[in-house]
Amino acid sequence: MGPDPAVAAVRVAVRRVLADVPPGAMVVVACSGGADSLALAGALAFEAPRCRPEGRPAGAVTVDHGLQTGSEERAASLVRTLADLGLDPAGSVAVVVGQDGGPENAAREARYAALDEAAARLKAAAVLLGHTRDDQAETVLMGLARGSGARSVAGMPPSFVRRAAKDGSEVLYLRPFLDLDRATIRRACEAMGLVPWDDPHNVDPSYTRVRVRHEALPALEKALGPGIAEALARTGKMLRDDADALDEMAARCLTQALSPPEQAESPEEGLWLDVERLAGLPRAVRSRVLRMAAIRSGSPPGSLAAVHVDEVDRLVTAWRGQRHVDLPGGVRAFRRYGRLLFGPS
Amino acid sequence: MGPDPAVAAVRVAVRRVLADVPPGAMVVVACSGGADSLALAGALAFEAPRCRPEGRPAGAVTVDHGLQTGSEERAASLVRTLADLGLDPAGSVAVVVGQDGGPENAAREARYAALDEAAARLKAAAVLLGHTRDDQAETVLMGLARGSGARSVAGMPPSFVRRAAKDGSEVLYLRPFLDLDRATIRRACEAMGLVPWDDPHNVDPSYTRVRVRHEALPALEKALGPGIAEALARTGKMLRDDADALDEMAARCLTQALSPPEQAESPEEGLWLDVERLAGLPRAVRSRVLRMAAIRSGSPPGSLAAVHVDEVDRLVTAWRGQRHVDLPGGVRAFRRYGRLLFGPS
Repeated sequence: MGPDPAVAAVRVAVRRVLADVPPGAMVVVACSGGADSLALAGALAFEAPRCRPEGRPAGAVTVDHGLQTGSEERAASLVRTLADLGLDPAGSVAVVVGQDGGPENAAREARYAALDEAAARLKAAAVLLGHTRDDQAETVLMGLARGSGARSVAGMPPSFVRRAAKDGSEVLYLRPFLDLDRATIRRACEAMGLVPWDDPHNVDPSYTRVRVRHEALPALEKALGPGIAEALARTGKMLRDDADALDEMAARCLTQALSPPEQAESPEEGLWLDVERLAGLPRAVRSRVLRMAAIRSGSPPGSLAAVHVDEVDRLVTAWRGQRHVDLPGGVRAFRRYGRLLFGPS
Repeated sequence: MGPDPAVAAVRVAVRRVLADVPPGAMVVVACSGGADSLALAGALAFEAPRCRPEGRPAGAVTVDHGLQTGSEERAASLVRTLADLGLDPAGSVAVVVGQDGGPENAAREARYAALDEAAARLKAAAVLLGHTRDDQAETVLMGLARGSGARSVAGMPPSFVRRAAKDGSEVLYLRPFLDLDRATIRRACEAMGLVPWDDPHNVDPSYTRVRVRHEALPALEKALGPGIAEALARTGKMLRDDADALDEMAARCLTQALSPPEQAESPEEGLWLDVERLAGLPRAVRSRVLRMAAIRSGSPPGSLAAVHVDEVDRLVTAWRGQRHVDLPGGVRAFRRYGRLLFGPS
């Protein structure tokens, strides 16, 4: 008799990503003690020694955010569980969470910085994260509410690279469970005899994600029928492909549209684009080119909104002699002699 | 003193679209008697005679779906209101609603067919529809739940063309209120002294849209903060641009990848694509090319899902000698000699 289907599912998911990670070096699971990352730890502990042609080293790190009483003891107990699974080394890292960008953001930043450092220290080939399809659905919905286009609706990527602050080494992060639903993973956790810790933050409605999980998604499911989390995750994946393709085209088109002025014609500093080339692009590509040009000229990505880009776009497509457009970060766009200039305001 | 700001907003919106409609011919408003389309009728009646260089004829049509008792009397009363506004002709058309594709779909189809015919009869340059930004947000959310990519999340287009069944003439539809919120439009309606009819269907929770409007969107707003409708509509608009750009690229790439076989090499009928060309495309473009090829080969768009396209994609990108892929509509895709063939199964 094979393992429980849920256990098989989490193991297969981990096996697949292990096959893509360069062999030899250690793979580390980031484990909070919650059901998702605990199941991930269990699956990694099972799969890593069975890698072919030879097993691979597998470790675990838990981050103690120090935000709740007893977090230190809980981290120590989790480390014992992880070590019992056979993950070696299994350790905890304590972090100090600031307040920058709200409590969720600050905790995430502190967590990733600690993981970067642990991964660099262990010379890990990859860090595995336990995000599920349900987490992805929540992220897609939150991105949708930002109203800033495909990239923000694309949700979490299945893999990404961060550069460790300490020594600049690159750390690869992978999310093997992004196609698995939370219920399957919880079942797997139970079937593997692992007892998850239910973080009280996960039911605290002062967190946006908690409200999305416990209020918004159930309401959506009630209105639109079952399968909404899956549909959101699938939409996110497709929009990620779209954003990748269009961003790459835009980067190429930006290079092609660059039009440095003759010295005699204009001594001004800045980034010059050929209006005719821009006008010939599809709007989706052009708006990305203009956004990239503004950012490259010093406009901060977080402050540069779609309305700003739209206004710059009108300098290209609805030109009737209008004045310059002022963008965040003291960047000014204006049109002159068939060129669009991004310079200091 | 100028008009109420809400009245000014609806009039400006109508004025803008009138400026883009070829002059001379009549513009017709489709009016249900609800606040949105009634405000649209009021704004059109005000703006049409003031068009420059000369006024333009403006009429109104209401469609009597015959689904509720008293609908005939209500239509007659609405026609009097519309005529009193100065819309000429103002008329009602009775339709018979079938059951195809569910009640909402059947009613919509019957309505548009009646509008097509009325527009063709009046030789109208355009038919105006009263959809608001809030309607758009609902549509985007419903599209998201389908999980079928950018096009379905793009919501309703601001303009589209239908071909009238009767004589094949083209009818242009415009949505002047797509950037205005429902509250503004209701205020405008009131300020113009127009009394809207509240369709009981608009609070009947057996309709998906009603559940989205009264349950899902308020829950989303509660979880994610105010401005969710605006963000959804903005996301939809950006994804429409993305989908337009990628669909156009895909159509071009499909033509370029077409690779008819030598007669001697293979006598089979079907659509052949060059695998190497396909492999060089970004995934977002390639998946659209493959989808288009399948549809062109006879696979019905409504049944062809993302999972089917993904499986065909693996014939291109993850080739390890796998068998053919059977698609809806008796279409089969397989790979042979560096080509991908779509043919009958």
